[in-house]
Amino acid sequence: MSAHASAFSGAATPGHHDLPDVSGLVVGVLGGTGPQGKGLGYRLGLAGHQVVIGSRSAERAQAAATELGIRGMRGADNAGAARESDIVIVAVPWEGHGDLLESLRAELVGKIVVDCVNPLGFDKQGAYAIRPQEGSAAQQAALLLPDSRVTAAFHHLSAVLLMDPETERIDTDVMVLGDDREATGIVQALAGRIPGMRGIYAGRLRNAHQVESLVANLISVNRRYKAHAGLRITDV
Amino acid sequence: MSAHASAFSGAATPGHHDLPDVSGLVVGVLGGTGPQGKGLGYRLGLAGHQVVIGSRSAERAQAAATELGIRGMRGADNAGAARESDIVIVAVPWEGHGDLLESLRAELVGKIVVDCVNPLGFDKQGAYAIRPQEGSAAQQAALLLPDSRVTAAFHHLSAVLLMDPETERIDTDVMVLGDDREATGIVQALAGRIPGMRGIYAGRLRNAHQVESLVANLISVNRRYKAHAGLRITDV
Repeated sequence: MSAHASAFSGAATPGHHDLPDVSGLVVGVLGGTGPQGKGLGYRLGLAGHQVVIGSRSAERAQAAATELGIRGMRGADNAGAARESDIVIVAVPWEGHGDLLESLRAELVGKIVVDCVNPLGFDKQGAYAIRPQEGSAAQQAALLLPDSRVTAAFHHLSAVLLMDPETERIDTDVMVLGDDREATGIVQALAGRIPGMRGIYAGRLRNAHQVESLVANLISVNRRYKAHAGLRITDV
Repeated sequence: MSAHASAFSGAATPGHHDLPDVSGLVVGVLGGTGPQGKGLGYRLGLAGHQVVIGSRSAERAQAAATELGIRGMRGADNAGAARESDIVIVAVPWEGHGDLLESLRAELVGKIVVDCVNPLGFDKQGAYAIRPQEGSAAQQAALLLPDSRVTAAFHHLSAVLLMDPETERIDTDVMVLGDDREATGIVQALAGRIPGMRGIYAGRLRNAHQVESLVANLISVNRRYKAHAGLRITDV
């Protein structure tokens, strides 16, 4: 074990002192009325970020923002949420992923996009991975948004824990992927704003598929152990 | 968080009291002269198992067993290791995986096979996932060995840590996959014999590809953080 092993206890986070201060960034959440997007918006709002909840319907987005009850949170249609934010989390269902991103190409120019979509299918045996033609949801996003800074992160979070006001810390690391080192550093820092989480760089976008589809395994874990499983990376 | 969260500290391992006693099982390691196989053989030998190191060459296998210096460890050619063992770990390079298993079909009838092979490619940007035609190395094994009990596990272990005599505990969980619940329970129990490790059920073989290829991400983690990364599943 390296001297870093002690950091696993949460006492320190090696490398995080090198990460930028992201506390002033406005965060948009596309698909922010779904469980994953709403939960992330809630946690980032609690952490002090201005959050814009996005949805197809501005009214439903505003209703979700109001329901979350965090000062300064607002709702907008997805295009508005993209336009008003510095960093844009994509938390839509896989089915609408490509069409939505293609429609928002102009709004997302120059922005950091954080794809957290898990392409999964479900049948009687549970969840299974779907392999997008482009390799992964994140690679699809990168192809559709050549002028954005596409990263992938926040795949393995339990929406139940994110939304549970009794849960103060979420005991998980966040694997952050991307080909733009400055962008992945910003997303790592953003993950680190949520108590309990660390953002850990975990490779290039070409290795996103297995991170996205590992959710199928965590669903199996949750069923077997009645858990809300997360992942920690040890020795970091 | 469930009441199980405290188990994450390693104080207890929920579900492990339901796992069988595997202490008497003889473990064979195909490809046991490679770093991963040798390291696993070493740890399971230290844990008190009779281990048979397998290799194409019985002489090299015996030399590796002697080098490890654990009483009762022996070497054999891969067919001999398969024949003499109750549970057979497959730790060969992906390139020879299918041919070897096909050649050992008779020796492996009725046995628990634990596939820990990670099909990866490497180029200047590091490691990337290879997707076997059958879906994963483990699914290939299951197709080639219809009369064996094929599981997948031990993908994410650092060979450096496994072989380091100064490292007493290995801080990682072991994801165990398979469609045969009794077999996955036995493999979970086997993983739990190595100090620090827990064997966690993590789904059916059809969800093995992402577990196998996640090693590409852990290689990126190791490069970035100068670590020997492992994975813990939280809330279990």
